[in-house]
Amino acid sequence: FDTTPQAIRLYLLYNHWGFQILVYAFILVDLALAIFEDPAVVPLPIWVTSVIELVCLAAFTARLVHYAKVIPRERFWKDPKNICIFAIILLSLVDMIIYGALKASGFYAVRWSRVLRPLLLVNITEGRQLRRAFRSIRNALPQILYVFLLFMFSVLMFSLMALKLFGKRGLKTIEGRPYFTNYLEIVFDLYVLVTTANSPDIMMPAYNFSVYFAVFFITYILINTYIFMSVFLAVVYNNYKKYLKEEVRKLVRAKRHKMVRAFGVLQERKGEEEPVVSQACWNQLVRLVQPDISNAHRELLWSVSDDNNKGCIGKVAFVQLADLLNIQVIMMKSRPHPLKTWLPSLYLSSPSRLVCRMVQHKAFMYTYDLIILVNAVFIGLDEEDPLIANVEWAFLVLYLLEILLKLYSFEPRAFFSRHQFWNCDLSLILDIVFILRILRLIRVVDNIKRFRAIINTLIKIGPTILTFGQLIVVVYYIFAMVGMELFKGKIRFFEANSTDPDKAFCGNALLKNSVFAKHNYCKNNFNNIVSSFILLLELTVVNQCGFTAVTHISARMFFVLFHIVVVIIIINIFIAFVLEAFFVEYTVDQSNLQSSLEKKIEEL
Amino acid sequence: FDTTPQAIRLYLLYNHWGFQILVYAFILVDLALAIFEDPAVVPLPIWVTSVIELVCLAAFTARLVHYAKVIPRERFWKDPKNICIFAIILLSLVDMIIYGALKASGFYAVRWSRVLRPLLLVNITEGRQLRRAFRSIRNALPQILYVFLLFMFSVLMFSLMALKLFGKRGLKTIEGRPYFTNYLEIVFDLYVLVTTANSPDIMMPAYNFSVYFAVFFITYILINTYIFMSVFLAVVYNNYKKYLKEEVRKLVRAKRHKMVRAFGVLQERKGEEEPVVSQACWNQLVRLVQPDISNAHRELLWSVSDDNNKGCIGKVAFVQLADLLNIQVIMMKSRPHPLKTWLPSLYLSSPSRLVCRMVQHKAFMYTYDLIILVNAVFIGLDEEDPLIANVEWAFLVLYLLEILLKLYSFEPRAFFSRHQFWNCDLSLILDIVFILRILRLIRVVDNIKRFRAIINTLIKIGPTILTFGQLIVVVYYIFAMVGMELFKGKIRFFEANSTDPDKAFCGNALLKNSVFAKHNYCKNNFNNIVSSFILLLELTVVNQCGFTAVTHISARMFFVLFHIVVVIIIINIFIAFVLEAFFVEYTVDQSNLQSSLEKKIEEL
Repeated sequence: FDTTPQAIRLYLLYNHWGFQILVYAFILVDLALAIFEDPAVVPLPIWVTSVIELVCLAAFTARLVHYAKVIPRERFWKDPKNICIFAIILLSLVDMIIYGALKASGFYAVRWSRVLRPLLLVNITEGRQLRRAFRSIRNALPQILYVFLLFMFSVLMFSLMALKLFGKRGLKTIEGRPYFTNYLEIVFDLYVLVTTANSPDIMMPAYNFSVYFAVFFITYILINTYIFMSVFLAVVYNNYKKYLKEEVRKLVRAKRHKMVRAFGVLQERKGEEEPVVSQACWNQLVRLVQPDISNAHRELLWSVSDDNNKGCIGKVAFVQLADLLNIQVIMMKSRPHPLKTWLPSLYLSSPSRLVCRMVQHKAFMYTYDLIILVNAVFIGLDEEDPLIANVEWAFLVLYLLEILLKLYSFEPRAFFSRHQFWNCDLSLILDIVFILRILRLIRVVDNIKRFRAIINTLIKIGPTILTFGQLIVVVYYIFAMVGMELFKGKIRFFEANSTDPDKAFCGNALLKNSVFAKHNYCKNNFNNIVSSFILLLELTVVNQCGFTAVTHISARMFFVLFHIVVVIIIINIFIAFVLEAFFVEYTVDQSNLQSSLEKKIEEL
Repeated sequence: FDTTPQAIRLYLLYNHWGFQILVYAFILVDLALAIFEDPAVVPLPIWVTSVIELVCLAAFTARLVHYAKVIPRERFWKDPKNICIFAIILLSLVDMIIYGALKASGFYAVRWSRVLRPLLLVNITEGRQLRRAFRSIRNALPQILYVFLLFMFSVLMFSLMALKLFGKRGLKTIEGRPYFTNYLEIVFDLYVLVTTANSPDIMMPAYNFSVYFAVFFITYILINTYIFMSVFLAVVYNNYKKYLKEEVRKLVRAKRHKMVRAFGVLQERKGEEEPVVSQACWNQLVRLVQPDISNAHRELLWSVSDDNNKGCIGKVAFVQLADLLNIQVIMMKSRPHPLKTWLPSLYLSSPSRLVCRMVQHKAFMYTYDLIILVNAVFIGLDEEDPLIANVEWAFLVLYLLEILLKLYSFEPRAFFSRHQFWNCDLSLILDIVFILRILRLIRVVDNIKRFRAIINTLIKIGPTILTFGQLIVVVYYIFAMVGMELFKGKIRFFEANSTDPDKAFCGNALLKNSVFAKHNYCKNNFNNIVSSFILLLELTVVNQCGFTAVTHISARMFFVLFHIVVVIIIINIFIAFVLEAFFVEYTVDQSNLQSSLEKKIEEL
């Protein structure tokens, strides 16, 4: 590392939050271009999208050049993520030129580099969490592959048995097609059965023929749907846990190493004794690292570190500092109520005291829980009725009264720290938002301790769900791009009041009388990025694919691949993650350091 | 415990395997009565089934009386399982009398005690594993309940939002019914959405109206289908693990306690030294407990216990005995080939040696793997073709040749112990069984080491899957009984060649033009125990319920309850179990004791 003032300034500038947000904004714009490019939700001329994309690419290049200035050259070119970004920018430029040239000369052209765009999210410096998730998937891949091969082997074997069992019997499916006569069709149908999408349908012709054939399907479902899918979860979960442990260990080691180095810089040696860091030096450091920490808080931390009141701390206590700073300490000063200082005679009068005691009583809380429940019932009732509309206003007044009463009896700051943001803010703000006022009901549930524990765990999962959200966006975006090139325009959606005769079969004669058209699934198409995303989400839940009817049968590969990547790998990682979060919640209560801090606080 | 010879003889008689099998046979007969009772697969007159049931009940009573003689009276009446069996027998008798009397006088009667029959499986002395499974469920119930209440709260809240969002827009479902206007309907529809059974359908009317409404459903699926279902798994799994640990700890403690008592009986004290057990006494004990153990094996076990060759063992080594006896030691004597002793000149001639070396070479195995794969392709081809039928005979000859060659080159016993039963027996026996010859393919997979590890774990799960099988049978039987009383005869199945006009709507006018009838689901009914079981299995996979159309809407409760009990609780326990089995497989390789035994073997 270069430690000249200029280099450090450049480094701090690179890590400035403004630039980080700017990079995310440019990536967002780049990804959002799919809304305006053909096939578009809102069509824009090609030169507009091209210019915007060029601006984005220029921004990414600037960021990359900045990064190259910050870190040494040999380390810059060794880092795969920089090479990746460089390649993405280069390939995008090449693709834009080719596409422009082909379009200008009237040929058919595909913007293939759009698939690469979401990879920017992974490869920017800030995408650490996302890279970790991808690394975890990559590490799990070999083991998943073995189980997958075994699973596919089982599917292929069952398909062969099905062919022998049912192929010769001349059975018909409900659509009148021959039942289980083509090996590849059987493999696909049985694969879909694993996703339970065609669950009773695929079995009905055989079951109608004879009860005994149900045994075949029951065995199949038991082995492939239940056992193999659980094994996938086990493999993914196991790898996730192993990888998580390693990552945490590595991080902790790196942190300790850095803290020891910092200690080496700051230490003072008094004769023969162990090197120590003095309180003054420590105070300065903490003030520099976290300027917004209060004096009382800093003194508390010092008294935890310097357990024996020696005025200086050794290496072990110093290394703990980073963890100490991470622990949130809520300041709860018992200040007097502002009214008490301004109008003591009024605020301390007996009626006022009665009000305060009333509000602080548990019955007050229960009363309002009841009011919220009654309100929920009224929300469920018919709103056209003027009486009910008026009652809603009464409830609003009641809620306002509650807030005022609480502000009166509790000190305002205490009031806001007691009610966490999603408890108080929501009921404050959302009373105004029409439909979301139902969320008020969460307050009732939150008052019950058992539920609160579960909800808190769910909220803790929140930030990591964001990482998963990015992961899902990356994978969905790639699949949406490929899907749009493959299937765009094959299925058309007609508005409800359209009289076009093509409406009965989604604008594609191949879908005449198909289940797809009958269920009115026409809007489930790849005609633009928004409907692609929604369709992919539906496919994640239940893998139904009527698209193979409108294109070549090999398009099924797309859906099977999607199922493998999203359901077998990513959703399982998500489940593993939720499981782990709850196990940790159920076993660990508080860390060691946190409890020592609490002991100190109690001593004070 | 009574230790008179008579009491011990009675106790041994009670635990005789013949009696245990007999009890299971009687329970099986009792459960199978449902096939012959109304609504029956094979109708039998009522007096026949009644007599058979009486015989069964008499057998259970006899068994119970026998058990009462074996253990002290006060302990007998304290044990809830005995009281349960007693109550079941009594209630069954009462029900039979009431049913007979009502039928004789021409009234409508319900055999309600049939629901109790599967509980016999749980409460007999041999049903330890099953009771453990139920105990584990009972222990998990409070925590499941809290999550479930929160989950239902979320469903109810989303339903309220859906009512407000969609109720006023006058949308229609694909069947033309009003969309999301009745609160209870919405709750049910959204509950089914959690099971993904009505996944895109329920969303389509709103989605067709506006793309933005898709956000509502996406949020709902994310929270309720993915997060809450994972939380259920986490809770069930966590409880399962905790309970498993406790059970194992308790069992180990009980075993150790009993072994220490046995040591106290057998110990010899030599002066001031620690009490010990001599080798002679130990040998006698082992010979008594496991008569079929060989001398060499016993000596091996002794040399493991008596590590220092003192001729006697202390308490610690003695307590290990039970674990030692559990380790399987495969005897692999390198006997000469029988032909070598009978015809040494021929067997040791150079052509014969060449054959032996050829067969033992790896290439021989690979050649046969290839042959099996080629055979699989031929099985997939059209069998009507006489050429292919003849090729099948050629393959059979090849397999026979392989077996003969292996018998020639390996010693027969070694051959059978090398090839585990499902590897050799299957390829031997199943070559004859027509359709299952496809299972030969498993041999190819089994040769690859990575796959073998996974397959072995799956096989290890086997015995516990039997316990789950019983659990599922108990729950299914109860639901089938209730379902049959509720829905029997509501839906009729017509053979494919029937010309009855009712065939189009499954014999129930209420199902006219319904999706249920259109998909030809008529055979999915509760008209007898077999189709009930198959229907319940289908409901486990995907919870579709057309039955509510033919009865009162409250019948939906039946399906929701089934989903809660089977999918949320039992299937999750199954998944937890598979997960745990694989985690154990991935982390632990061999126990301490086993490796010490192996060290001894290597020393020898």
